[in-house]
Amino acid sequence: MKTKAIFYHAGCPVCVSAEQQLAGALDPQRYDVEIVNFAETPQRIAEAERAGVVSVPAFVIGGSPFHINFGASMADVKGG
Amino acid sequence: MKTKAIFYHAGCPVCVSAEQQLAGALDPQRYDVEIVNFAETPQRIAEAERAGVVSVPAFVIGGSPFHINFGASMADVKGG
Repeated sequence: MKTKAIFYHAGCPVCVSAEQQLAGALDPQRYDVEIVNFAETPQRIAEAERAGVVSVPAFVIGGSPFHINFGASMADVKGG
Repeated sequence: MKTKAIFYHAGCPVCVSAEQQLAGALDPQRYDVEIVNFAETPQRIAEAERAGVVSVPAFVIGGSPFHINFGASMADVKGG
């Protein structure tokens, strides 16, 4: 069974770079990668926060949050 | 040709978690992943800094730095 890996972002330049170079790098044989853009699906902000995401871009892999560089805080995401 | 992906860390708990869950997740068909532990090879600190690494753990993929969560600053790494 593949491990779920969710890449959360908000369309910022830092996010796009991370999406292209890191989110696309995971092994498709072992990971089921989903890309979530909060600008399009703000209703998924709560789920990301529950997983421990405090800034974007971030990966949640197997339930653990990995913040990648810093594009925007979740407060910024919610405020925007 | 595979893209070079170097995972720099310093043995900290945050680093180990990222190594296990993220460094090992890259597609081996497309990425040549190297793990560098500064505690073992401090002579590689300069190369990481030139690539833009300011904290560990961090990935440098295709020359671009991606800082993952925050384990320690490079100042801490050099001071330790």
